[in-house]
Amino acid sequence: MHAPIVFVTDFGSDDTYAAALAAACWRVDPTLTALAGMHGVPPGDVLAGAYHVKAIAQALPPGGVVCAVVDPAVGTARQAIAAECGGVRFVGPDNGLISWLWAEAELSGRRSVALAAPSNASATFHGRDMFAPAAARLATGASLAELGNAEVRPLLRDDAFVRDGHGVVCAVDHFGNAITTLRHADLRGRAVYEVEWRGGRTTRVVRTYADIPDGEIAVVVGSAGHLEIAARGQPATALGAPPRGAAVRLTLQP
Amino acid sequence: MHAPIVFVTDFGSDDTYAAALAAACWRVDPTLTALAGMHGVPPGDVLAGAYHVKAIAQALPPGGVVCAVVDPAVGTARQAIAAECGGVRFVGPDNGLISWLWAEAELSGRRSVALAAPSNASATFHGRDMFAPAAARLATGASLAELGNAEVRPLLRDDAFVRDGHGVVCAVDHFGNAITTLRHADLRGRAVYEVEWRGGRTTRVVRTYADIPDGEIAVVVGSAGHLEIAARGQPATALGAPPRGAAVRLTLQP
Amino acid sequence: MHAPIVFVTDFGSDDTYAAALAAACWRVDPTLTALAGMHGVPPGDVLAGAYHVKAIAQALPPGGVVCAVVDPAVGTARQAIAAECGGVRFVGPDNGLISWLWAEAELSGRRSVALAAPSNASATFHGRDMFAPAAARLATGASLAELGNAEVRPLLRDDAFVRDGHGVVCAVDHFGNAITTLRHADLRGRAVYEVEWRGGRTTRVVRTYADIPDGEIAVVVGSAGHLEIAARGQPATALGAPPRGAAVRLTLQP
Repeated sequence: MHAPIVFVTDFGSDDTYAAALAAACWRVDPTLTALAGMHGVPPGDVLAGAYHVKAIAQALPPGGVVCAVVDPAVGTARQAIAAECGGVRFVGPDNGLISWLWAEAELSGRRSVALAAPSNASATFHGRDMFAPAAARLATGASLAELGNAEVRPLLRDDAFVRDGHGVVCAVDHFGNAITTLRHADLRGRAVYEVEWRGGRTTRVVRTYADIPDGEIAVVVGSAGHLEIAARGQPATALGAPPRGAAVRLTLQP
Repeated sequence: MHAPIVFVTDFGSDDTYAAALAAACWRVDPTLTALAGMHGVPPGDVLAGAYHVKAIAQALPPGGVVCAVVDPAVGTARQAIAAECGGVRFVGPDNGLISWLWAEAELSGRRSVALAAPSNASATFHGRDMFAPAAARLATGASLAELGNAEVRPLLRDDAFVRDGHGVVCAVDHFGNAITTLRHADLRGRAVYEVEWRGGRTTRVVRTYADIPDGEIAVVVGSAGHLEIAARGQPATALGAPPRGAAVRLTLQP
Repeated sequence: MHAPIVFVTDFGSDDTYAAALAAACWRVDPTLTALAGMHGVPPGDVLAGAYHVKAIAQALPPGGVVCAVVDPAVGTARQAIAAECGGVRFVGPDNGLISWLWAEAELSGRRSVALAAPSNASATFHGRDMFAPAAARLATGASLAELGNAEVRPLLRDDAFVRDGHGVVCAVDHFGNAITTLRHADLRGRAVYEVEWRGGRTTRVVRTYADIPDGEIAVVVGSAGHLEIAARGQPATALGAPPRGAAVRLTLQP
């Protein structure tokens, strides 16, 4: 029985790039059919990609593979990695896409190896030529050691991690909720007093979207454990929530 | 052999929410791979969702499961249901998404039970934590009775059903065709004389899109049995067809 | 073991049309689960569809099936075909979607037959009622002869093929790269001197996107073997690259 693979990319859904990842898996094994994908990472936005990698990894069963391709440096000397992180596997460029997945895994449950580009890889599409085939090999039973034997410490993005309450909006979801790098874990058991950003702030903290009063914004702990600035029935971003990339500041209750 | 599952949601394709539904199914059984999804219901538009639930249910083989998540009241006391309707199964919130599917099924072929939220469900994402797992259980052989034993009559939306020829545009498709709540069955064997809306009307009825004269709009019975106001080679909505939500009025030939 | 099927359509991802293709396959055989799709061909753009058909066919393993539905003439007398082309199979309307796939296959490895519409096919949705079922039959072992016995020569589009260096932009991808009908093969071993279009030109030719200087555009041979006018980190189309449909002219080095 094969492990499922989920792709996280910035390919969009209007090209054949996404389908080519599935096709590349079928070249390894046409019975690999537990495949899904999220191809809406904003082009080149590695921090947003890292958020989505973590979000989908949390939903996967043990052994699941996340194959992430947000890769503006494709064809250059940037490294590629395959990793185990707390029961799931990761394949992608070594540019920080793994940041939260790696940082939140138990130390004993994580390993990462360098992945070599196959000699026949194109210069422009390593998703098809390198990452999807590697993910397919993991899903069909290959060990990390079969993909590479040089252990490497993956690159983590500094801006993924909150310092002194300072974070950033890493994604705005389809409903217009502003998802931040502030995590439930960053609360260290205390309660939110305020989230503030240029031009706005809120001290309202609710449990679910339906608890937000009409026309207001509030803080919700989203389904992946990140604090969101959210609204009900309309985009929070239309009510003054901060846009993607904006700095946010968390203050805890004393 | 497992039954196929199709998701109908308003999640869009730019987040990991859609892929998380597949992942949740794989947590139940990783060999569940007959999965597809339509995630383009306008945010919170339950009537549009009900149309798409019906459209995809018609295409599924017997036993297929439609898992519908257009759920603005997630986390509140709104009920959740699982149902059998004329050979296919439905899982989703009890907010009217099942309206046409239920109403068009034979009385003897439909049953519906209340679905309880698992104790570990998040407050914001019942798609992942409740509906997809329930769909997966149905697809892998569970009976409706195993999911819930309290029979309930599902909520049907009034605006799904035509009264005295009055309907509404429930969806505008990717080609710009305005799909209405007026159904072929509402013609009761008679022919369309006119469809009229605020600011426009047409008495042209054609069999297929290519029969529509250039620059004109016409009524077509679409592939799910609903009357559409359509054009050829360009969006009907750009030629005066009514927008989503607009009232329409059907007049039959005598 | 079944062959994989990839759909290439102009259905978009906001309707149930795409999911209905999968459902139609499951009506033939619910264990057909190696399915993927690209539904972002601009509405009715057969030339763009032909490019994507070729691009995905290159990625598929031998025996793979491309089911293409860009079909503005659905319901009319236009023919439908099933074909073998260099190891992969094609199903779709006979309107030129197969142009490159057919032209680039070895003469000995290609065959095409006329496909009859089933008597119960709707007038508006042959993707669901004819093409997907035919693709499913091929994927589950049917031969071309079982789908039709009248050999036909498929229609090829003239504008797919470069004459005297004259081509056209057949697609603009998600990253804003302008993909042309000019192919690596059209270089006949020589180097590009210039690609020119109304209002612009470039003589810069690079191997990969990261080699393009900031704010500049350049020619890249893309992953399907077509010349692209590309930029790095921003849409080339925003920097003066030609739009979809624009004429382009290739000049080779002497």
